Amino acid sequence: MGTGIESSTSNIFQTLPANKPLFDPLLMDLLPKNDNNIYQQRLEQIIYRLKTSNNFNKAAKEIYPVAATSSSIVVEMVVGKDHVNNKGTLHGGQTAALVDIVTSRAVAVTHKNIPMSSTDLSVSYFLPAKIGENLIITATVLKVGRTMAFTEIEFRRQVDDALIAKGKHNLAFLPIPQDKMENLGPYY
Amino acid sequence: MGTGIESSTSNIFQTLPANKPLFDPLLMDLLPKNDNNIYQQRLEQIIYRLKTSNNFNKAAKEIYPVAATSSSIVVEMVVGKDHVNNKGTLHGGQTAALVDIVTSRAVAVTHKNIPMSSTDLSVSYFLPAKIGENLIITATVLKVGRTMAFTEIEFRRQVDDALIAKGKHNLAFLPIPQDKMENLGPYY
Amino acid sequence: MGTGIESSTSNIFQTLPANKPLFDPLLMDLLPKNDNNIYQQRLEQIIYRLKTSNNFNKAAKEIYPVAATSSSIVVEMVVGKDHVNNKGTLHGGQTAALVDIVTSRAVAVTHKNIPMSSTDLSVSYFLPAKIGENLIITATVLKVGRTMAFTEIEFRRQVDDALIAKGKHNLAFLPIPQDKMENLGPYY
Amino acid sequence: MGTGIESSTSNIFQTLPANKPLFDPLLMDLLPKNDNNIYQQRLEQIIYRLKTSNNFNKAAKEIYPVAATSSSIVVEMVVGKDHVNNKGTLHGGQTAALVDIVTSRAVAVTHKNIPMSSTDLSVSYFLPAKIGENLIITATVLKVGRTMAFTEIEFRRQVDDALIAKGKHNLAFLPIPQDKMENLGPYY
Repeated sequence: MGTGIESSTSNIFQTLPANKPLFDPLLMDLLPKNDNNIYQQRLEQIIYRLKTSNNFNKAAKEIYPVAATSSSIVVEMVVGKDHVNNKGTLHGGQTAALVDIVTSRAVAVTHKNIPMSSTDLSVSYFLPAKIGENLIITATVLKVGRTMAFTEIEFRRQVDDALIAKGKHNLAFLPIPQDKMENLGPYY
Repeated sequence: MGTGIESSTSNIFQTLPANKPLFDPLLMDLLPKNDNNIYQQRLEQIIYRLKTSNNFNKAAKEIYPVAATSSSIVVEMVVGKDHVNNKGTLHGGQTAALVDIVTSRAVAVTHKNIPMSSTDLSVSYFLPAKIGENLIITATVLKVGRTMAFTEIEFRRQVDDALIAKGKHNLAFLPIPQDKMENLGPYY
Repeated sequence: MGTGIESSTSNIFQTLPANKPLFDPLLMDLLPKNDNNIYQQRLEQIIYRLKTSNNFNKAAKEIYPVAATSSSIVVEMVVGKDHVNNKGTLHGGQTAALVDIVTSRAVAVTHKNIPMSSTDLSVSYFLPAKIGENLIITATVLKVGRTMAFTEIEFRRQVDDALIAKGKHNLAFLPIPQDKMENLGPYY
Repeated sequence: MGTGIESSTSNIFQTLPANKPLFDPLLMDLLPKNDNNIYQQRLEQIIYRLKTSNNFNKAAKEIYPVAATSSSIVVEMVVGKDHVNNKGTLHGGQTAALVDIVTSRAVAVTHKNIPMSSTDLSVSYFLPAKIGENLIITATVLKVGRTMAFTEIEFRRQVDDALIAKGKHNLAFLPIPQDKMENLGPYY
């Protein structure tokens, strides 16, 4: 990683210093290496942290990073028995939980990894997804302002790209005094 | 339970026959007895089923029934470590999961316990709720039509009635052939 | 109006000075007098301004003030030919326009009359309302924070209180330098 | 227009018979001719009808057809003095009204032109649009089921493609007896 990228990192992504590992170094070693895409590195770090979560974030512990750009992240997940309702299809509450978790990681990865809180979340449900089906989940940051971020997310069936659900999520950045900003730990 | 109530039950709540227990009879014995309020009985049955769930419905396994009327149900929950985000406050995804699960139980309890699927869900978040705080959650059925049900839900802090979050959830009833309707098992 | 009320007014409602009429004084004379309820006075002033609007606010020019408290306002409207769709019932777009206009007036009347902009708006539609029907519209401010206000609104048929539509509207206060705040004109 | 296209038309778009003009034939003559794209022809017919509306549809009387495919329509509009708020920028209520009107035309043009009613509508607002700015508005039909249609819409500034607002709109098809379906007039 060159000097140019590092300095852009410290501007855009000030709370994720390169030399401060986000999680257990053993897990780090399992990560695919991708020195050319800083967004993808952050995505991998942030998503892998979910694997060891013991709070509600474990609702996303089975998502895997696919790709990241300057405005969006892509993850995938196979629908498992923990994710479904009594009909054996992806639970609307699981989908909504992923809307929250994945879109906020998209903001952290592509814009700012500072404390934020949800203001509004919504989901529309189009098709059921059965146990065993692979979902491709794309979260896009539509706008990041001074105090808020606006995101959206699509859940598609991998086999045929059919739209399963679509959601949006607005987040407010929590006010942080400028002098605290320097020493802020990584948020997610 | 008298004949009058039974016949009203078979009209309004056709898929929840009195003689077909919803769950483990041992759990049944733990339920408070309330012979006068059919809605409250159904609420207790439906909510207690969540306790033994091993699919995503376990996201609501710690809610407890409080009250039920012909149009709404009230449940409560103490915010625990499984429900929170990295800041130690109620996770937006947990809230959204409860919007889905509790409002659909409100439709099942007060109107029709037949298969339904979510079409739209949304939540606005107003205040954080910390671990140990008791939440009073009220789900109201705003309209039940031929093919859809419209609901809303409020999460309030028990200690001072402060509004934590508010959501809505639209559900579509799945089409069931009339001859199948007679033998339909309870849905939730 | 006593000194106490005036000083509380200048705190809560700083941009609506009592001695600066909001609109044509002739219209003022038509207003019902209510010296005891500062919120109702503001409601009447703010709503009557809409009558002479020549921008999109004229979509609300036929609403009339009913009541106001410290957290909500109530207005009424008879469904007219300008408000309907090709079926002759209240147009969903008209309803949505009123969600925007009436809830933002509720914030101005009950909390702060400073520049704000919408971040999110939504409506659910329950029942049609025909030409000639009288609607009672209640907008409630759920939360006002440092940078945002959260509101909701109900449209009910006056004759039987049936719920026609329900919406919500989040608004962001525009940042105003403190020294400009003193001389800010009334916003709506 | 060949036989193949006509028969596909009568299946997909049964209520818009080719030989029954939707509006004043004089206006028809002003339409650009495009014999190869049935969707674009329908878009032009449906949008031009709005020009002479004297109900709330006149909120969309200044939109112009741009393009149509089998799943989406594109229209444009210059922000005028009738469309703005007191700050002189596109009124949130005008945007919401267009969400309703344009997305329902997208369903009529690309799928079914039969009576429908809104169930849910929402909008997120990202940037102000000033008087004189040209907006490109794209409405996409995400799913059409037996009883419902799900749509979304984007408002972009023409000059730089910046996202001004994004909305969604769910509609329910009104139940029509099969024998009435044959003689149904065009809906919009």
